[in-house]
Amino acid sequence: MSDPSAPIDRFYSVIPAGGVGSRLWPLSRADAPKFLHDLTGSGQTLLRDTWDRLAPISGEQRIMVVTGRAHRAAVEAQLPELADPNVVLESEGRESTAAICLAAAILQRREPGVIIGSFAADHVIPDHELFAAAVAEAVRAAEAGFIATIGIRPTEPAIGFGYIETGEPLAIDGAPSARSVRKFVEKPSLHTAKKYLESGSFLWNAGMFIARADRLLEELGKTEPEMLAGILELAEAWDTPRRGAVVDRIWPNLKKVAIDYSIAEPAAKAGALAVIPGRFRWDDVGDFASVRKMQSGGRTSDLVILGADARILSDASSGIVVSQSKRVISLVGVKDIVVVDTPDALLVTTTANAQRVKSVVDALKLNGSDDVL
Amino acid sequence: MSDPSAPIDRFYSVIPAGGVGSRLWPLSRADAPKFLHDLTGSGQTLLRDTWDRLAPISGEQRIMVVTGRAHRAAVEAQLPELADPNVVLESEGRESTAAICLAAAILQRREPGVIIGSFAADHVIPDHELFAAAVAEAVRAAEAGFIATIGIRPTEPAIGFGYIETGEPLAIDGAPSARSVRKFVEKPSLHTAKKYLESGSFLWNAGMFIARADRLLEELGKTEPEMLAGILELAEAWDTPRRGAVVDRIWPNLKKVAIDYSIAEPAAKAGALAVIPGRFRWDDVGDFASVRKMQSGGRTSDLVILGADARILSDASSGIVVSQSKRVISLVGVKDIVVVDTPDALLVTTTANAQRVKSVVDALKLNGSDDVL
Repeated sequence: MSDPSAPIDRFYSVIPAGGVGSRLWPLSRADAPKFLHDLTGSGQTLLRDTWDRLAPISGEQRIMVVTGRAHRAAVEAQLPELADPNVVLESEGRESTAAICLAAAILQRREPGVIIGSFAADHVIPDHELFAAAVAEAVRAAEAGFIATIGIRPTEPAIGFGYIETGEPLAIDGAPSARSVRKFVEKPSLHTAKKYLESGSFLWNAGMFIARADRLLEELGKTEPEMLAGILELAEAWDTPRRGAVVDRIWPNLKKVAIDYSIAEPAAKAGALAVIPGRFRWDDVGDFASVRKMQSGGRTSDLVILGADARILSDASSGIVVSQSKRVISLVGVKDIVVVDTPDALLVTTTANAQRVKSVVDALKLNGSDDVL
Repeated sequence: MSDPSAPIDRFYSVIPAGGVGSRLWPLSRADAPKFLHDLTGSGQTLLRDTWDRLAPISGEQRIMVVTGRAHRAAVEAQLPELADPNVVLESEGRESTAAICLAAAILQRREPGVIIGSFAADHVIPDHELFAAAVAEAVRAAEAGFIATIGIRPTEPAIGFGYIETGEPLAIDGAPSARSVRKFVEKPSLHTAKKYLESGSFLWNAGMFIARADRLLEELGKTEPEMLAGILELAEAWDTPRRGAVVDRIWPNLKKVAIDYSIAEPAAKAGALAVIPGRFRWDDVGDFASVRKMQSGGRTSDLVILGADARILSDASSGIVVSQSKRVISLVGVKDIVVVDTPDALLVTTTANAQRVKSVVDALKLNGSDDVL
């Protein structure tokens, strides 16, 4: 047995740090995406939280971050330990397949046989030990040739997440809880979500994928051979002076597709996917209702306040206030309210309408208000 | 008969321009009180609206404004026609009895036998002709020796106003609708307000008082002889070099009392009060619910927007937004909301809670947040 507190052999963490988080506008912006905010009250950004969770698992020198060129300085400021060769900059966002598979291909060239685990930069997982234990199992499943994922045991009939239906136990050595995957399903209705919860055989899809880099690319080749060819060409040029020219030629033409569709679902159908049920608390803090709930521990009478310099006066009010200005904010008799106060934009909604905030961002795009996006 | 479009003989308008309007915080402030705002969408301040309503009745040269020293520049900017001797500056607010009776005493010395009419600087009366007709009747009642008031025929069972119970017709020449006053009553419960509305004999107390200046002071002497003595001494010194010294000595020690209590109620008991029922629309725009209602014409589905530079994005929302910043304000699924966005303070409440905004101001005072009051 290896030391459980030591980094896992041959393992590399990949953090795709992309996505604006439109439902968290006006806090999240194109130039200040969700992963650069402290939404947990931990005092540091979600990206930094992610790093701190992964560093003991893979080692600080074995974490790769894939992010937009525009975020390079912010990411490096958050992660001063991040090794320079482990920063992969995208000239434009091409979705998760391109980001994760490019990282896999670069790392496979540098270190044949490497196992990578891809974890979003903006999810919340308070219990690092249970998380690490799940990753350790997933790595064993990956060593056995599976594309592994970690699904989250649902605690409520959430309609904001996709689900994974689990199948039979796989009896993988070192991964006792690994099961096959029957199918991936999209965000369900409340009725369906309740049935999922009751059945006990559905997990939340948290978008975590762990696999041998060569196996991941092999699966990609089955569904998207053109993408694979492009990505292999990029990886071949990556650590050479030709990188810039090859990136300019290939990257903007890569297909935009989520890794769930390009690799995970086809692999599940082919029996090549293994899922480890995670028993840790997890949240993608996808909207302000979620942020409020996480911070209040579910107490609906609470008023959650985010903002170091917040000056809030609340009279018989509940919900969440995010204060990025030094203005006095007064709430009088408003329940389950969401107020997000930034220097150039203000949002007022309710937790019940939190998912609809994305429509505001769409409307702002349409009417040319790019200055506040 | 005199020309109805000419100013009324011997008549002087007095505008007490005081009171912050706490229920309209953070729009109304100590340094930007309610009367300096445009709450009607007329494009000009309530004070200027008041001036424009009174100028045809008394003549521009016969309007006196009583206001705080701090507001002098703002008042003069709003009212460039205001004659210098007609600006009465208070070193500190001493309530309506002191303000109105000092004006009465100054004017009585300058012009014995003058009739004054006192009208708040921050009420809304869209119909100038009906208003002028009511004032004309009130002046006739004043000439007959009455302390006259104009009450407003209620259109709904409002609980935010005091009421006047009318008595018998007074048969005053030139004031056919004048009636005696049975009593003044404080803001009622909804149940009582409904009974008042049904009875047909109650009017809203709009705080308008019209009287011969000497009669007003005579009534004051009956209830507050010390105040009268102080006010007469102030008036005697007013147009002399001694004004400053006398003001410093007397003004800060004058009793703070509303004219309703010091003069109107006692005069009503003594049968010396006459009321003219006003049939014009009137509102004291006392809170944001009132502003919203006035601007929407009562349509509760509307979202009323105040602010020349407002950038508002509303999705399925109703209520009122006051925008004094250039920030984008997004409302998503909030009904009957009140959002008041100023550079240093933000209020979020609902129209149902609009009266409670005063409690915010009280709380801000208590916690030392004078910078936003």
